[in-house]
Amino acid sequence: MTTNKRGFASDNNSGVHPEIMKAMLDANIGHTVGYGDDIYTERAKTKFYEHFGTDIDIYFVFIGTAANVLGLHAATRSWNAVICAETAHINVDECGAPEKFNGFKLLSVDSPKGKLTVESIKQHMHGFGFEHHSQPKIISITQATEMGTVYTVDEIKTLADFAHENDMYLHMDGARIANAAVSLGLGFKEFTKDVGVDILSFGGTKNGMMYGEAIIFLNKELGKDFMYVRKQGMQLASKMRFISAQFERYLSDNLWHQNANHSNKMAQLLASKVKDIPQIKITQKVEANGIFAILPSRELIEELMDEYFFYDWDESKNEIRWMCSFDTLEEDIFNFVELIKKKL
Amino acid sequence: MTTNKRGFASDNNSGVHPEIMKAMLDANIGHTVGYGDDIYTERAKTKFYEHFGTDIDIYFVFIGTAANVLGLHAATRSWNAVICAETAHINVDECGAPEKFNGFKLLSVDSPKGKLTVESIKQHMHGFGFEHHSQPKIISITQATEMGTVYTVDEIKTLADFAHENDMYLHMDGARIANAAVSLGLGFKEFTKDVGVDILSFGGTKNGMMYGEAIIFLNKELGKDFMYVRKQGMQLASKMRFISAQFERYLSDNLWHQNANHSNKMAQLLASKVKDIPQIKITQKVEANGIFAILPSRELIEELMDEYFFYDWDESKNEIRWMCSFDTLEEDIFNFVELIKKKL
Amino acid sequence: MTTNKRGFASDNNSGVHPEIMKAMLDANIGHTVGYGDDIYTERAKTKFYEHFGTDIDIYFVFIGTAANVLGLHAATRSWNAVICAETAHINVDECGAPEKFNGFKLLSVDSPKGKLTVESIKQHMHGFGFEHHSQPKIISITQATEMGTVYTVDEIKTLADFAHENDMYLHMDGARIANAAVSLGLGFKEFTKDVGVDILSFGGTKNGMMYGEAIIFLNKELGKDFMYVRKQGMQLASKMRFISAQFERYLSDNLWHQNANHSNKMAQLLASKVKDIPQIKITQKVEANGIFAILPSRELIEELMDEYFFYDWDESKNEIRWMCSFDTLEEDIFNFVELIKKKL
Amino acid sequence: MTTNKRGFASDNNSGVHPEIMKAMLDANIGHTVGYGDDIYTERAKTKFYEHFGTDIDIYFVFIGTAANVLGLHAATRSWNAVICAETAHINVDECGAPEKFNGFKLLSVDSPKGKLTVESIKQHMHGFGFEHHSQPKIISITQATEMGTVYTVDEIKTLADFAHENDMYLHMDGARIANAAVSLGLGFKEFTKDVGVDILSFGGTKNGMMYGEAIIFLNKELGKDFMYVRKQGMQLASKMRFISAQFERYLSDNLWHQNANHSNKMAQLLASKVKDIPQIKITQKVEANGIFAILPSRELIEELMDEYFFYDWDESKNEIRWMCSFDTLEEDIFNFVELIKKKL
Repeated sequence: MTTNKRGFASDNNSGVHPEIMKAMLDANIGHTVGYGDDIYTERAKTKFYEHFGTDIDIYFVFIGTAANVLGLHAATRSWNAVICAETAHINVDECGAPEKFNGFKLLSVDSPKGKLTVESIKQHMHGFGFEHHSQPKIISITQATEMGTVYTVDEIKTLADFAHENDMYLHMDGARIANAAVSLGLGFKEFTKDVGVDILSFGGTKNGMMYGEAIIFLNKELGKDFMYVRKQGMQLASKMRFISAQFERYLSDNLWHQNANHSNKMAQLLASKVKDIPQIKITQKVEANGIFAILPSRELIEELMDEYFFYDWDESKNEIRWMCSFDTLEEDIFNFVELIKKKL
Repeated sequence: MTTNKRGFASDNNSGVHPEIMKAMLDANIGHTVGYGDDIYTERAKTKFYEHFGTDIDIYFVFIGTAANVLGLHAATRSWNAVICAETAHINVDECGAPEKFNGFKLLSVDSPKGKLTVESIKQHMHGFGFEHHSQPKIISITQATEMGTVYTVDEIKTLADFAHENDMYLHMDGARIANAAVSLGLGFKEFTKDVGVDILSFGGTKNGMMYGEAIIFLNKELGKDFMYVRKQGMQLASKMRFISAQFERYLSDNLWHQNANHSNKMAQLLASKVKDIPQIKITQKVEANGIFAILPSRELIEELMDEYFFYDWDESKNEIRWMCSFDTLEEDIFNFVELIKKKL
Repeated sequence: MTTNKRGFASDNNSGVHPEIMKAMLDANIGHTVGYGDDIYTERAKTKFYEHFGTDIDIYFVFIGTAANVLGLHAATRSWNAVICAETAHINVDECGAPEKFNGFKLLSVDSPKGKLTVESIKQHMHGFGFEHHSQPKIISITQATEMGTVYTVDEIKTLADFAHENDMYLHMDGARIANAAVSLGLGFKEFTKDVGVDILSFGGTKNGMMYGEAIIFLNKELGKDFMYVRKQGMQLASKMRFISAQFERYLSDNLWHQNANHSNKMAQLLASKVKDIPQIKITQKVEANGIFAILPSRELIEELMDEYFFYDWDESKNEIRWMCSFDTLEEDIFNFVELIKKKL
Repeated sequence: MTTNKRGFASDNNSGVHPEIMKAMLDANIGHTVGYGDDIYTERAKTKFYEHFGTDIDIYFVFIGTAANVLGLHAATRSWNAVICAETAHINVDECGAPEKFNGFKLLSVDSPKGKLTVESIKQHMHGFGFEHHSQPKIISITQATEMGTVYTVDEIKTLADFAHENDMYLHMDGARIANAAVSLGLGFKEFTKDVGVDILSFGGTKNGMMYGEAIIFLNKELGKDFMYVRKQGMQLASKMRFISAQFERYLSDNLWHQNANHSNKMAQLLASKVKDIPQIKITQKVEANGIFAILPSRELIEELMDEYFFYDWDESKNEIRWMCSFDTLEEDIFNFVELIKKKL
């Protein structure tokens, strides 16, 4: 057990944005029918329609793992395979939940920058029609990636086109989609639905919500019967209004943008400060809210960890990850950089 | 989509108790490490230890379905069977989630009052050691039952002893355990751990929480390795502190008792009023916060439903279910009974 | 471990019909490509086309359990339910294999004669479109039934029509389909494809084959992609020719009919002899090759079992099951009846 | 569909050894209780005890896929991971059956020679006790490997010791274990049980049997309750005696050795002939019955395939695989090499 302290561990170490907390309070009135047939959910969906158009199908779940696992379920059978980056959250951080619930195979691709390319995927594009081989059906990308990088619109379109040419779908794990949108300077639709993403895990928790993620079938057909999948997948909230109220507020008055913009900026600030320290090497482009860096020694890492939360990325290389959040303060960064310099 | 209106549909149509909402607000400070290694979770667990003793293992999840499914997972393999009432939530209201995630078989027992007895279970106590037959491993009861009745301490002990004599476990779905405790006039431990319950789904959502249920391994051994089950089961909250803060408050200052006591009382009030109406027949003992009744006509049911939420139970018999909640008002009941009388 | 002795335990206690054994020997020449792309399999399929027409899709598997489980898989998702008789093999004799592999729910119906009727099914025909409820998708019947009875053509058609009216499918477990065909005096097609059966488990092992069952998609559409299901379901034989050679011979020169006709006749003979013994009560119509009877005492059952294999059916009632086989001899029956009389 | 022709496609393109066929014929007498409680199975197990000692637990199944999938099931829960070679049959040739039935994750290792080493495994030896990470529990090796190479006794012992030091198990896919034993000049026990292999898939089909594989729990404890796994896994044969009779004969009079010895020798012969052809490059050590070679052109490959069955291994490199079998004739090899030379 650890006491509260500020840090750069994960954007889910932050709390809830006050405006979202207020929206939950405001929704706490009287009785509302459970499981989503309520006005809060209707209004939240309307917000999504404003961003993505109405030709989509939306389902709220509790958690990003479920958004990914159940979203992938909708377009696969157990004898399919899903192609993803070696570093993908679905591949390394979900304790096998995709395999357990979906029964399918993950085919991973070595992806040093966290991104898939058509070229790198091709190693898995074989065995179609061969019954001994799990049939590839989905390409899954993460936006922003687990390495803090961001796919360009063209990169996504190329993957989507490739998927569709091969009778496959493109899934996007958007746990940090807001950070990607800010980084690209685009609305959500322009780098998802408009370029062919079929299934989107739309994250909220990492950008100021308490809990709640959306599975959006941009390819609406895939949402058919999904209500049963969500229920059987143990993700149907009874007091749904409290997820919906969060999303409604999150997508109003650009709150999502404001939060993501802030965390991205803080990452830039931290990166710019760290670049001045010759002993530290930043290992990935800083395009969203995460920074990956190699530090000169294990001792330094541990001394820093004593005062700030953050995670090792690759212990063998003294590579660490720092994540900024909607509530990261400039002061946090100044103090932290100060500490680094002192400890060096 | 339906607008807000008061009613007797389910105790999860209510919102969140203000004190619990306040606890969530209070927990919304600064950064906290995710996934449960935080002081809020520690304090919440301490509250559970006060109620159940420290020789238990506790895991928080989002939802009652998951509490049941994953709790049962811990003590079974897929070739096992779980014996439950025909009316059990795990049997009829979870869209097959127990079978899907656990791969096992549910063996149901016709249970007009919602309760299992050793006698009624015996039809399934055969085929042990016979490889063609799913091996019974758990008896699962619901307390308070889905029919609004409450198991006595003796009834539970008898079932637990029977389970253990047959190398099986006793699981309790405690979605409404607070209502049962109030009804029995006992603390939680006295009708669970003390009499041999092995696994407990401890509900919060139906008694004033926003979301969050606890899986409690009263037989601590069964909790071994459960953290992986919860994660793979898509039930590990990143911002865990907000479930924990709710439970901490819920279990403090008798809030759980106050809420359940109120809803039980309201059910008694409604029942007492309805008993005076000769055209209506109450079909189950009112021991917790639910009332089951046969109404004289379909028309009446529909007219009442136009103004108040509630559910059909058995359409063929014009049997309905009315649930009272922590926020049901005496006034709600007076108005509703008034309406019934007017419509008759 | 038990030594060989004759008996009435099960039609799978017999060996292999000599003609089928010979066909396997004859197929044992040279090299053949594995997994079914061979001339034996082609010829076996042609035999099936002669019986069912060519508008079907056929897959061979090792075992009846797999024929049922995988056949049901093809037309369901895990949130579906399959309606079957309480006594159905899929419900009581497959150690939960249908639930494990398919994730779905079995909804059983009390069926004293082993048969489903539309009337008896109706209890489960609700909750359509309700996400909390496993959605019924298949009605599964066994022909001949586990109780030795045989559905009439009309009974099957009525169930098929009812299934289709409700957007469901009709599955037939035909582990003893040959005995049913003989009993009805019909070809296979007339009581399956012609009246609307969608999926058929076509058994061979219980009527003189060594191993091998066929899953026949009479509704051809359902066989789409099934080759992957069979492989992932661990039922794709590498040396497929030896299943195929059996089926080719089995379906040639009326061998299937000759075998089933014999076992049915032996059952009639045994039944007729037993009817003369007043202390024994036959409890089901003898329409195929099985006889169910109540014997006067446990002692008698055990004395008989000392000399002949057979199974208890309901120990509480001293009810037993006697199965006749393609190789049951008149002499077996005379000797057995003699023994009964002696022991009475 | 293809007609019979000789070739080097797979050792399962051969038929059944005449002595094994004779044993099946001999077992086809009278009635025998089903599912394995018979004298043939007892005798077959006795043969295994002679080879492995009696402190083991043996289960027969139909097929190698099932032997692997169910054997791995016995020592894992779904949140575990199994480490295997990239080329392992369980990873690439079972259409995701291990993931579907077991729910776990396969962690593959790039293994150009088909072999795992402690060094190569270490990349996956992390995240123990971390709930987000599938917990490695089994190291699975194939003997002889899918690349035609054979682990030495020391290599196996080193992996077994490493597994046990890390609270893991060692599984061996022995689809071609007889070829490995012959290659090593050892009895089965010396490179399995004696050096710490816990679970063994013991193959028969590829070395002259018709169907039937054995799952051997050399670590006997792991076989506890396995009979339910086999049944639920759809692998319990009713007419078990016909698998058992094959194994009894296979393990008698050194038939297994004679067959494997022959196919290994034929592989050596083919390799020696091919080595004289400068345009062909053998790419793996020929230690069992398989040869991997790079041919000079696609055209040559296709011309050879017109007359002899064999498989591409890596089309991009014109690498092919030739497998020899117990019934490969010297003549086959002479003719084939002749053809190669003619076509070059």
